[in-house]
Parts: sequence; C-alpha cells; structure tokens
Amino acid sequence: MRDWFVRACQAIDCLVTVDDMGNIFARKQGKNSVLPPVAMGSHLDTQPAGGKFDGVIGVLSGLEVLRTLHDAGYTTNAPLEVIDWTNEEGIRFPPPIVGSGVFAGAIDKEAAYAGRDNADKVFEEELKRIGYQGRSRCGDHKPGAYFELCIEEGLVQQPGQNIIGVLTGIQGERWYEVMVTGRESHAGSTPMPVRRDAMLACARIVEMVNNIALDHAPSAVATVGRVVVKPNSPNVIPGSVYFTVDLRHPDDAVALLMDKQLRAVIREVKAGMDIAIELNDVWSTPSTRFDERCVNVVRGVAESWHYQSRDIISGSGHDAGYISRVAPTAMIAIPCKDGVSHNEMEEISPEQAAAGANVLLQSILTWDNDQGSAAVNR
Amino acid sequence: MRDWFVRACQAIDCLVTVDDMGNIFARKQGKNSVLPPVAMGSHLDTQPAGGKFDGVIGVLSGLEVLRTLHDAGYTTNAPLEVIDWTNEEGIRFPPPIVGSGVFAGAIDKEAAYAGRDNADKVFEEELKRIGYQGRSRCGDHKPGAYFELCIEEGLVQQPGQNIIGVLTGIQGERWYEVMVTGRESHAGSTPMPVRRDAMLACARIVEMVNNIALDHAPSAVATVGRVVVKPNSPNVIPGSVYFTVDLRHPDDAVALLMDKQLRAVIREVKAGMDIAIELNDVWSTPSTRFDERCVNVVRGVAESWHYQSRDIISGSGHDAGYISRVAPTAMIAIPCKDGVSHNEMEEISPEQAAAGANVLLQSILTWDNDQGSAAVNR
Repeated sequence: MRDWFVRACQAIDCLVTVDDMGNIFARKQGKNSVLPPVAMGSHLDTQPAGGKFDGVIGVLSGLEVLRTLHDAGYTTNAPLEVIDWTNEEGIRFPPPIVGSGVFAGAIDKEAAYAGRDNADKVFEEELKRIGYQGRSRCGDHKPGAYFELCIEEGLVQQPGQNIIGVLTGIQGERWYEVMVTGRESHAGSTPMPVRRDAMLACARIVEMVNNIALDHAPSAVATVGRVVVKPNSPNVIPGSVYFTVDLRHPDDAVALLMDKQLRAVIREVKAGMDIAIELNDVWSTPSTRFDERCVNVVRGVAESWHYQSRDIISGSGHDAGYISRVAPTAMIAIPCKDGVSHNEMEEISPEQAAAGANVLLQSILTWDNDQGSAAVNR
Repeated sequence: MRDWFVRACQAIDCLVTVDDMGNIFARKQGKNSVLPPVAMGSHLDTQPAGGKFDGVIGVLSGLEVLRTLHDAGYTTNAPLEVIDWTNEEGIRFPPPIVGSGVFAGAIDKEAAYAGRDNADKVFEEELKRIGYQGRSRCGDHKPGAYFELCIEEGLVQQPGQNIIGVLTGIQGERWYEVMVTGRESHAGSTPMPVRRDAMLACARIVEMVNNIALDHAPSAVATVGRVVVKPNSPNVIPGSVYFTVDLRHPDDAVALLMDKQLRAVIREVKAGMDIAIELNDVWSTPSTRFDERCVNVVRGVAESWHYQSRDIISGSGHDAGYISRVAPTAMIAIPCKDGVSHNEMEEISPEQAAAGANVLLQSILTWDNDQGSAAVNR
C-alpha cells in the first residue's frame, strides 16, 4: 500500500521523502521553494475489519488534487505536499495517531519506537523491516498550512445533496487499560459466595462506563472495545480480564469529570468484590480547536460552490489534531452511509467524494493565493 | 503423556488396547477372564492453564493400584482395568466428557469425530495424526464396575486429618453458546443513542446469569467462562460477542428452571437493545445418582480405615457420570487446597493422595471379593 502510494506520487513527478517515523511526504514543487509547503493528508492504515475510506479518503483526495494540478499544468506559489501519516489507528501498536503525534512533538519518538504488538514485535524493528524508517528527522519542514479530508459519521447524507462538514475542532479523547484479577477456578464446583469472577467485574464496569456517557448526553461517548479473558474456557471461572476504555467529550472539563467517574466506578466495583482492578492511562489528548483562518477558507469554498455546509466538532481523533499544534489546520468532512465507519460496510457516494476533493483542491488554492499575495506584499 | 501412560502400564505386564475414540485401556489379568473387568480411571487432559491433579489423579491412582498388586503378586478374581478417557475437559474440541460419553452411548461418535478446534482442525483427523484412533469399537467390553478417584473443591481439608468424599452423584450441567450481533462502528463519532454495542449486551447477560445462580442458592452455579469479542479494537464498538454459559444444579427440576430463566434473560436484554442474540444448546447432562452398592463399598472402606468420610454430590462433571449409565459406578473424592481447581495453583497433600489411592485399592478388592464369592456361589 505504501509502495503503491509512493509510485503513484512519483508518476506525477513528485519528490517523495520518508521520515524516521515512516511518514511519507510527496512534494509537488511550487514557484517559490522558500515558502513552507501547503499540505494535505491523512493515513492509509485501517481497522482489523476495515472500512476502506476512513483515512484513505484523505490521502487519495490529496493525491487527486496533485494529479489534477499536474494534468492542468498549474503551479502553485508554495510547494504542495500530500502526507501519509504512520499508524493513525493504533491497532497493532498503541497508542494511535502516532506518526503525526511524534511529528508535532506531542508523543516521544523513543516511546513510539519501543511499542510492541501482540506477537511482541517492536515498532521500530518492524518499520525497518518494511523499509520505511526514512532518514529525515520526524518533525522537520513543518507545513505552512494543513488541510485534511475525512468521513464523518455525524453528518447525515441527503439524497441529491452534497454536504460538506466544516470541522471547527476535535473532541478530547482518553484511552485506558483495565486489568481485573480474580481467581480462575472450576465452574462446576466453586460455590457462588467464594467466587472471584473477573468477568463479572468486567461486566459491571462495562455497564457503568456506558452510564458515564449517558450522564453527559448528548455529546459524551464511552466504549469498551477490546476485551481479553483468561483462561477463556467454558468451564473455568475467568481469572483475569483485560479491557480498554475510551472516553470522549468536546469539552475538556466534562472529559475530566468523566475520568473521575471512571475512577469512582473502578473503586465501587472493587469494593463489592474480592478482586484486584488496575486502571492505567494509556493515552489522552485534549480537545482541539482548528485555525480560524483555515476554517474560514473551507467554509467560504463550500459556500461558493453551493454545497450545504455545516460546522461540526469531530467525534473521532485525526492526524489534523496533532498537526494543528504546529501549523494552521482545518478539516473537511463528508458524510458516510448510515453514519457507520470502522466497519467493512463503511460506504460513501462518488458525488460526495468528488465534492470533498473539490473543496480540498479549492481550499489549497485559496490559501496558496492568499499567502502568495501576502508574500508579494511583504 | 499418552505414550508415557502406555509404557508405564506395559512395564507392569498390562495388556494395553485403544478404542476408536482414543480411550486407553490397561488390563491386568484376573483369575477368571470370563468376568467383566473391575475398572478405574479418569482423564489425562487438563485446562489451558492446568491444574495438574484434576483427572490425572484418577488415572495415576489406578496405575498405582495396579503397580501395588503387581509388586505384591496379588491376582484378583476379575481382570482389572485402568482407563484414560479421551478429552474430558472439552477445551480444544467441545463438547466435554466425550470419550466416556461415546463409550456409554450418550454422545454420537460421528458428531464427536466431526468436532473442530479454533484452527479448524477436525477431531478424528487429529486423533489419527497422534496415532490414537484404535481398532476396537468404543463401548465394547463394558466394565463390571467402575471406580473413579477425583479431587473435589467442596471438601475442606483439615490439618492432620484425611477426608474422603463419598460421591453419591453428580449435579446436572448445561452448556450454551450465545452469539450477540450488534454493529461495529466508530467509538469516537457514533452517538450513544444509535449504538448497537454487542459488548454491552454481553455485560448485561453476564450479570443476569450470575443472578440466576444466586436465585437458587446455595447449590446453583452459573458461569460465563469464554468470551470472544470482535473486532476487539479499543476504538471500535464491538460488532459481535460470542460467549459460553454453564449452568448447574443437583436437582434437574431446578436446572430446568434455570434454563428457562436464561431464555428469559436473553429475551429481556434483546428487547431493550437493537441487537440480535442467538442462544444455542451445546450440551447438557442430567444429574447422576451413583450405584448404591458401589457407594456403600466406598463408604465402608473409608470407615474401616478410620478416614473422616462425608457423602457429597459433585459439582463438576466426570467420566464416571456417563459410565454410571452402563456399569455400577462410584466415585472417591479427596480435598484440594483452598478448594481451587482448574488453576495452576491446584494442590493436594501427599497424605490425602495416599488415602484416596488406598480407598480406591480397597474398594476394588472389596468389590472383586464380593463378586468373586457371588460368582463362586452361582
């Protein structure tokens, strides 16, 4: 997939470089090579069972923008870049959003390198093995601006209408690991009062985690997505259960309150059972507000093309969240069918994909023109 | 393990045969080869993380009985047999207790042969591959009586005292599989009201299954031991959860009531959520009452050796449950440390092991003498 992307970019005369986190940068030269690049991008990795658009649409739309300009023989003032950020999903190697996180200085590179997968393979060694640990230092040559196209589950698709979501920010996100340790014992002959059932404790926490989100409706979400039971045998009371908790809210103060509630839930379940429960903070990111100038460019383009546009705060994490810390950033969203993503069924309409890519192209050109004029005026 | 057992039995001049379910029979000839064998046995397989005594103690104690008689040069009236029953635990290939189940005609051999493990390997092919699909037909040459030694979690070990559990029966047991199908979707951007979270449904059922057992205290037990979540990713709402339910009660009428409650629980959870839940009966066995004559022999031996003896109903399934359908059967139990089994920590005292093996030896000899006299008297 990486190789395909590199070849596709080289085929339209882009200069492709790879940094030492495996992030891939495809540069189309501009008139003024001193200007920082205007960048687009997202990620090419996905979830265990797909879907095929989350992330991929952002990279391919960037590629389509470069192809369109290449075909038209149009040269921008600033160089343009399309970026594929490494490991946004964080599935094989947690934490997520790590390529852009290291780029923005938010995640320590050595910590990212040391990540291990379930087979105990090490992130850095795997990056080397696939030939994508580049020589340039991750974080060098910051973009002058960054625009990312994504699918957004919160946008409702309308028949015959193109909707453009103008993302004004991303909600905060907190990832936890919970390790419940009870005692594995015989399912037939261990009386109920002496059981130390790790699965029962997990079940109680799952219900209460769900309640934390309901307490802060309508914006809060809370998910237990990964659960590993041991020894996982029908006639053995589970001795241990590992599971993850994901809490999100657009307002950092509420997210902090949800964090406190989770800790209280753990204490409450622990107090009612003879088991040990360990809660670890895996990763968290505060909510993001995107650059007002960039957001205005996106909103203006959508309006001038007569797309229905709507300001929204994204529920999901994106590379743009970290990049907004080091460059003016905005995001463009298109709806996905039935609001379903992180699923093999993930689907978008060709018309919406074209509308999104068009807004990306026009936003890039608008920003480049404005900045080009500004540079001339200086 | 099987090879070791075969060699150990052959070393004391036993005739070892294997039936077409992989059950291993080690026969020590008696004076009268027309009499059906007096048999002992259990299973050599265990749980994913042990313990080392459940099952194994029954086979090794039988071997020790044969060794003791071999060393003493003692020949019984009837032939003696020690039997290793195939796949009692049912971990790699469900259902459990399958070798003795087919032997007793309670489980269909072709269905057992067709069982598949997680890697989709087939039971019969694996049995062939390890060289233990014997030529004799499973179920042939029924024993004249069957005695099985086991560890029993319900017996409390007393310092300086040997306890012998006289098992009068085994409680009924029901295994189910539950498949919850919701919809996998993005943990960040899927609002709570539209979620179809399979893990949340599982959690609710786990709590309610636990309540079913509490409703029928103190004898009922209920366990969710195996849980498989898909796609099992921290930032994806689980789309499906497979789990097992194990319900047991010594009284079949109560067990049936628990079955009805489980079905009501499934309906209740389904009614409250937009998800599909499928309940499959995997396997069940009614409660067993052992043969009164055999049980009296065990009780009498324990008393005459001045062991503390106690009548109990076993909470766990045993090969003896099925064998009791085709031969007079009893079980002898010894306590395990802290009542913990199906666990690496499973432990017994050497004194208790010796006491249990002694009761097994004396019960076999008593039965053989009584039957021998009866044969002479006929």
